[in-house]
Amino acid sequence: MAPYGPRLVVPIDVKKKPREQKLPLHNRWHPDIPPVAEVKTGEVFRVEMVDFSGGGITQDYTAEDIKHADPSIVHYLSGPIRVVGEDGIAAKPGDLLVVEILNLGPLPGDEWGYTATFDRENGGGFLTDHFPCATKAIWYFEGIYAYSPHIPGVRFPGLTHPGVIGTAPSMELLDIWNKRERDVEENGLQNLKLCEVLHSRPLANLPTPKGCRLGKIEEGTAEWDKIAKEAARTIPGRENGGNCDIKNLSRGSKIYLPVFVDGANLSTGDMHFSQGDGEVSFCGAIEMSGFLELKCELIRGGMKEYLTPMGPTPLHVNPIFEIGPVEPRFSEWLVFEGISVDESGRQHYLDASVAYKRAVLNAIDYLSKFGSSKEQVYLLLSCCPCEGRISGIVDSPNACATLAIPTAIFDQDIRPKNKKVPVGPRIVRKPDVLKCTYDGNLPVTRNPSAST
Amino acid sequence: MAPYGPRLVVPIDVKKKPREQKLPLHNRWHPDIPPVAEVKTGEVFRVEMVDFSGGGITQDYTAEDIKHADPSIVHYLSGPIRVVGEDGIAAKPGDLLVVEILNLGPLPGDEWGYTATFDRENGGGFLTDHFPCATKAIWYFEGIYAYSPHIPGVRFPGLTHPGVIGTAPSMELLDIWNKRERDVEENGLQNLKLCEVLHSRPLANLPTPKGCRLGKIEEGTAEWDKIAKEAARTIPGRENGGNCDIKNLSRGSKIYLPVFVDGANLSTGDMHFSQGDGEVSFCGAIEMSGFLELKCELIRGGMKEYLTPMGPTPLHVNPIFEIGPVEPRFSEWLVFEGISVDESGRQHYLDASVAYKRAVLNAIDYLSKFGSSKEQVYLLLSCCPCEGRISGIVDSPNACATLAIPTAIFDQDIRPKNKKVPVGPRIVRKPDVLKCTYDGNLPVTRNPSAST
Amino acid sequence: MAPYGPRLVVPIDVKKKPREQKLPLHNRWHPDIPPVAEVKTGEVFRVEMVDFSGGGITQDYTAEDIKHADPSIVHYLSGPIRVVGEDGIAAKPGDLLVVEILNLGPLPGDEWGYTATFDRENGGGFLTDHFPCATKAIWYFEGIYAYSPHIPGVRFPGLTHPGVIGTAPSMELLDIWNKRERDVEENGLQNLKLCEVLHSRPLANLPTPKGCRLGKIEEGTAEWDKIAKEAARTIPGRENGGNCDIKNLSRGSKIYLPVFVDGANLSTGDMHFSQGDGEVSFCGAIEMSGFLELKCELIRGGMKEYLTPMGPTPLHVNPIFEIGPVEPRFSEWLVFEGISVDESGRQHYLDASVAYKRAVLNAIDYLSKFGSSKEQVYLLLSCCPCEGRISGIVDSPNACATLAIPTAIFDQDIRPKNKKVPVGPRIVRKPDVLKCTYDGNLPVTRNPSAST
Amino acid sequence: MAPYGPRLVVPIDVKKKPREQKLPLHNRWHPDIPPVAEVKTGEVFRVEMVDFSGGGITQDYTAEDIKHADPSIVHYLSGPIRVVGEDGIAAKPGDLLVVEILNLGPLPGDEWGYTATFDRENGGGFLTDHFPCATKAIWYFEGIYAYSPHIPGVRFPGLTHPGVIGTAPSMELLDIWNKRERDVEENGLQNLKLCEVLHSRPLANLPTPKGCRLGKIEEGTAEWDKIAKEAARTIPGRENGGNCDIKNLSRGSKIYLPVFVDGANLSTGDMHFSQGDGEVSFCGAIEMSGFLELKCELIRGGMKEYLTPMGPTPLHVNPIFEIGPVEPRFSEWLVFEGISVDESGRQHYLDASVAYKRAVLNAIDYLSKFGSSKEQVYLLLSCCPCEGRISGIVDSPNACATLAIPTAIFDQDIRPKNKKVPVGPRIVRKPDVLKCTYDGNLPVTRNPSAST
Repeated sequence: MAPYGPRLVVPIDVKKKPREQKLPLHNRWHPDIPPVAEVKTGEVFRVEMVDFSGGGITQDYTAEDIKHADPSIVHYLSGPIRVVGEDGIAAKPGDLLVVEILNLGPLPGDEWGYTATFDRENGGGFLTDHFPCATKAIWYFEGIYAYSPHIPGVRFPGLTHPGVIGTAPSMELLDIWNKRERDVEENGLQNLKLCEVLHSRPLANLPTPKGCRLGKIEEGTAEWDKIAKEAARTIPGRENGGNCDIKNLSRGSKIYLPVFVDGANLSTGDMHFSQGDGEVSFCGAIEMSGFLELKCELIRGGMKEYLTPMGPTPLHVNPIFEIGPVEPRFSEWLVFEGISVDESGRQHYLDASVAYKRAVLNAIDYLSKFGSSKEQVYLLLSCCPCEGRISGIVDSPNACATLAIPTAIFDQDIRPKNKKVPVGPRIVRKPDVLKCTYDGNLPVTRNPSAST
Repeated sequence: MAPYGPRLVVPIDVKKKPREQKLPLHNRWHPDIPPVAEVKTGEVFRVEMVDFSGGGITQDYTAEDIKHADPSIVHYLSGPIRVVGEDGIAAKPGDLLVVEILNLGPLPGDEWGYTATFDRENGGGFLTDHFPCATKAIWYFEGIYAYSPHIPGVRFPGLTHPGVIGTAPSMELLDIWNKRERDVEENGLQNLKLCEVLHSRPLANLPTPKGCRLGKIEEGTAEWDKIAKEAARTIPGRENGGNCDIKNLSRGSKIYLPVFVDGANLSTGDMHFSQGDGEVSFCGAIEMSGFLELKCELIRGGMKEYLTPMGPTPLHVNPIFEIGPVEPRFSEWLVFEGISVDESGRQHYLDASVAYKRAVLNAIDYLSKFGSSKEQVYLLLSCCPCEGRISGIVDSPNACATLAIPTAIFDQDIRPKNKKVPVGPRIVRKPDVLKCTYDGNLPVTRNPSAST
Repeated sequence: MAPYGPRLVVPIDVKKKPREQKLPLHNRWHPDIPPVAEVKTGEVFRVEMVDFSGGGITQDYTAEDIKHADPSIVHYLSGPIRVVGEDGIAAKPGDLLVVEILNLGPLPGDEWGYTATFDRENGGGFLTDHFPCATKAIWYFEGIYAYSPHIPGVRFPGLTHPGVIGTAPSMELLDIWNKRERDVEENGLQNLKLCEVLHSRPLANLPTPKGCRLGKIEEGTAEWDKIAKEAARTIPGRENGGNCDIKNLSRGSKIYLPVFVDGANLSTGDMHFSQGDGEVSFCGAIEMSGFLELKCELIRGGMKEYLTPMGPTPLHVNPIFEIGPVEPRFSEWLVFEGISVDESGRQHYLDASVAYKRAVLNAIDYLSKFGSSKEQVYLLLSCCPCEGRISGIVDSPNACATLAIPTAIFDQDIRPKNKKVPVGPRIVRKPDVLKCTYDGNLPVTRNPSAST
Repeated sequence: MAPYGPRLVVPIDVKKKPREQKLPLHNRWHPDIPPVAEVKTGEVFRVEMVDFSGGGITQDYTAEDIKHADPSIVHYLSGPIRVVGEDGIAAKPGDLLVVEILNLGPLPGDEWGYTATFDRENGGGFLTDHFPCATKAIWYFEGIYAYSPHIPGVRFPGLTHPGVIGTAPSMELLDIWNKRERDVEENGLQNLKLCEVLHSRPLANLPTPKGCRLGKIEEGTAEWDKIAKEAARTIPGRENGGNCDIKNLSRGSKIYLPVFVDGANLSTGDMHFSQGDGEVSFCGAIEMSGFLELKCELIRGGMKEYLTPMGPTPLHVNPIFEIGPVEPRFSEWLVFEGISVDESGRQHYLDASVAYKRAVLNAIDYLSKFGSSKEQVYLLLSCCPCEGRISGIVDSPNACATLAIPTAIFDQDIRPKNKKVPVGPRIVRKPDVLKCTYDGNLPVTRNPSAST
């Protein structure tokens, strides 16, 4: 008789706060954060996770918690987990760590989540110049489905995945990150024109001891102080994987992660019940606590064999993955296009981000004709299983991006229609998202000709 | 007995040159190019098309024709087609023209196509700083499948579609286009930083009488001279649809196009047997001649009802479409990520174009380990049914883009492997793409650490 | 430059009758029917076909042609085609002939088809005891879609395929067929109890010179007389493939056929624009003329290596096939069950045919509540892309069969509903199928409790 | 804040025996078995279940438990559950009970299952005349995947579902069942010819007090004695749903069940991690304990509105269902055909059961060429996600059934091949299924020409 069932290596008690969990959590990337658990290749193990905010965002029907959320504490991660081969030898730098996601889901007893946009002064989102207010919607789960009292008229199966999964960086890689991100933070507004179209700020999130959690390393020690000052924030995805927010990393998928430190030091968190490509509202998936059932393999020396350095050093690589076989299946899609001309009518050069912004704005305006507020659609497109594609990237000067939305998630037919009864879009007033005031004084972007 | 079968409204004789076709072709957008045919809503009609180059790119096993291709003559379009409602009233500005693609394919007797990259001095491509040479591969069609003697080891079903489909712009819209594109051409290098990463030039393609074809308007007349100077080039997709290069516009899809002029004046061309998201090598689909079987409907006043102006005027809209039910079906995908850090290691801010460039470079390097040249993979990823996604667009400073490749198109298992025989990637030398020298003197981008 | 495009080896002129075609057709299986064409393995070739009735069933809006159809003339086949290896050696008995369907479709200019039920005295259908009348519906094709003026409210993409594709039998195999089918025809009513539930007659279709077509063999010769008396009818599928009516043999699929005679002698016909599993109304696909683009390979000695004799001789084999990648994609299905209890309430033992009959009857009654006649639904379920499954075959005494219907083919929502407006099924009177009287005197099966 | 998370209404302790569970189980259908729990429409609730054998079949690596399994105790069901509308009124006869399967899976800590064939003297299976021995394979679950040490070389995602889900019959319906099944048991061997091809016995499983469990009704009471003698066995699916073994009743599917008694009295059990169409080895799914998360609705009076009586009374109905959106997705299938000619070469008349038997035998013989024993393949085809279809049911005298197998579940390429290295099927000796001797003296069916 073979052993079976996953071994619980990182437990979470959903009734407790992050600091009270049995194994300490962390929210930074650094080679010196010690492992809290160890697994063997081939064994099936279970990792449990708090939501990215560690309970900071609550089930309460208010958006005040979002408005005043502290960005320095994200993302609470479980791990690091040290990976050891069946030969007893730990993963080595240069190896490729194969992580298979065997199963995942919300934690029992905690079957709810939220989608939100941050206030423009507090992180914003992809469309923060259009939607500067903090908003929030609560979602409840019914098995594979999610529904929200704040976004009526839709219900959809989740393509559940971890927003963050990655290995620890080496000191050399960490230095590369900190240097290049400091540069964009300090010089970006002058040097990068995309900032004129995308208004979320700051441009980068640099290391800070504020809000820092380093797992087993005790706060107040010299070690803590040193590491806290240099440990990378978890907001962007990077060479080690991390917060890539790839919605297809779901059941049955395999991730090939580079190993930069002894033992690989795998960390994961930021579980998403569902997310659309781009996660446009920023706090934009259906955020939740959750669990992963994983199995690891090691391809010894696999980084050199399989990964591509794309930059000045062999560390400039990216993970590879395979998509699993049980994604929700939709056959009908309504698709919105955008080109790289911004809302002011200004032409950009092959800029897929500008094109995607326009595609998302197009979709929001269209769908809001069917009885929802634009804020509802913005949150919906951030978390439902919609697909964002770079359709054309060579036809100067226009990039063309598309956003495809599965029509089956709506309880009405949202396709354009002719000579049908009822004629045209249906106007139904409904409850709205939870919303705060925007107290800043930055101007809102408006399309003079758009529907109001 | 009902009428059936499509009515041929634009015939093409594949043995003849563009100028010799029964109905004249055109390669510019302008409200005054007169229709060559008329259709009623509800009727099924057939439009035939030459390839985008009008035969300029040949079946010959050489890339010289690509190296010296004349960009001023693209794209040869069939139409304009005037659309009239069942009530006898032509489409009006403000209507929404619904075009259903009932069927499409290569022209009988012309079952071949090509994929190419332009020389860096002659248009380049998404990766022209890496691959400055003109290259070409010829593809032959076996029913739904394409294979190439120049890219052995792959065969795939086409997701066939027209690269260009659009309505004629009004004079007001045309002026908007010309103004904004002139601005990017004249000031872009100073103002837009993406030019430092994407090296294809020119930044925009402005109107020019050179190579201009205006359908029924005779060359040499005063009318021709006037229109040729102001008619928009067809290279970028714009508010009227046009060269959006959306690979999913295939059998059974429906496109909702805005109408800007009386009769709508629908034009189409640039047939693609298959294309990957982004069409990265620029001349990058499997380009071919072909036919469309179409049916039109009109939603009177539908622009206002369904489209979203996203800019200073009500003309700043984009088409909507629905995806058809018979796309090729793949269950297994290998996915490559890219983040918005460029090959020099420089950090960009949420730039999806930079991230996608890195993802494509990652995929090329990886796949070239399995016995192909990098040029072969570059052309392959440009034309095979791969999916390019904007996965994360909010995690400052990194955008995360992904490129998903269906593994079934290869005749070998391309997934990373451990402890398998044969161990690691298989190295097989094969014929290569057709290739010219690059005679310019711009530096090639190299990754010092990449495989060679 | 490689050769490309299919070579036309069997042409059909749709304006001519079967006897007037350039290459003679045949409608029997016999080893001595000589080939009309020859192909090499690896080459792409095109075979054109009349519809199964050779034009006997017309576009006229009447069912009289169905009522008086002559079953002795079916199916008009194109071929036989002799297959020769690249080494110049013809296919040999014992080889496996791999036939790849590269493309297929209706013949240009003939884009229509029909679905029908035979009169109970003239062949009937799966439900002939319920529906004894001859009925017919005409379908028109719009590219990938079919619609019928006689079955309003539905439109669907075709899963087009040849109903008949097979190799010639050897004399030994032909003798086996004739012997076993004669036995069932002569003794079946006494020996087989399924005849009490399935009422189509005759039990088998034995060889007959009446209506016989033998290709190049001249009628009136001694050879013709001999062969006509022993050549097998084409109605049932058998060891050589033949009329298997497998709806998934569409674009991109591969069939592995056993070779019984020198050259394989491949024949094909009975093109179906679309068919449901079971083809329940008998003349039940959307029958049409059409073309196939094929490519053959030979696996020498492959019968022994890959096929399984399932009977007293090594000839008792069945073909294998692979499904192609471009089937229409549906995500939502409504499913009807049936168990092996017949309409009289009588229990049968694990009988999947009885269970499937009940499932189909359940579906017809259900769908007829939405504004269609039962005859319309019977024809629809025979030809639309519905799936018939043997779900349970071991739970004595009940077999459980299911019929899954894609909901997207209807222009209304056909799912059961609660508390919705409009409440319950919508009753809409519509045109009906073309229908004849039933002049026989067999009793009709009725469900006393069913809706009328 | 809305309530969320499922309410546990039937708990199971996997460490306890069926008799020791908190709520008593039952294994018969009868209107007088009292409910053990009550649910409201709209609420999400959880039902836990022992495996069908109640632990009689163990994890031990032996098939002795299968050989001596007691068929009188199957299936241990959880329930009945009384369903009450939001208006407080219980479900009424004539209502339609809509059961949505929101989630399901194995019970935590019990992530294993088994597939088996019964001994021919003890129930047999679909192919018991070929495989008379009791055999067993143990499967272990890794999240969505199952693998077996007894069937190496395959691993697949489960399409998990309850084998049994149904409502309680009324006394009138129960009488109909008992009468018709008694008739087939007493007279079937004389009257039904399919028994000559399908050899599992008995023909029907009639009521018996032996092994009977009636939930809250105490054994030894007069009530128990009466009910035990008349309560229907759970082996066949019937008008109330029950043991339909429909593999597609998985996550997100909806079942429309007829209501025959006050409160509906829903029972469920026989959880399957995965099953192929037909469940051919009888104990043939991957049998396990498990849980369902359900939500009910009531369509008042819906039986008359939506279900079709197919027999002498309005009770002769069958459930309807909708398929959920997250089934495992496969793109490549190898398909085996069978026609209604049995292993002795005898012709049957349109018999789908005979045709399917031949298709399954064909597949077993084929796949066993790739290094597995035939017993391994028999069990595999019984439990993997393969599709069994009734392809043709009208082409007298041959029914044509097909069995489609997803090729991705194998760790080698199982398609027929030509000119490839390695040439032909790979022969690999491997561990085998657990197996007992067959001690009966019935002859085994053999194909004289089959591979051995």
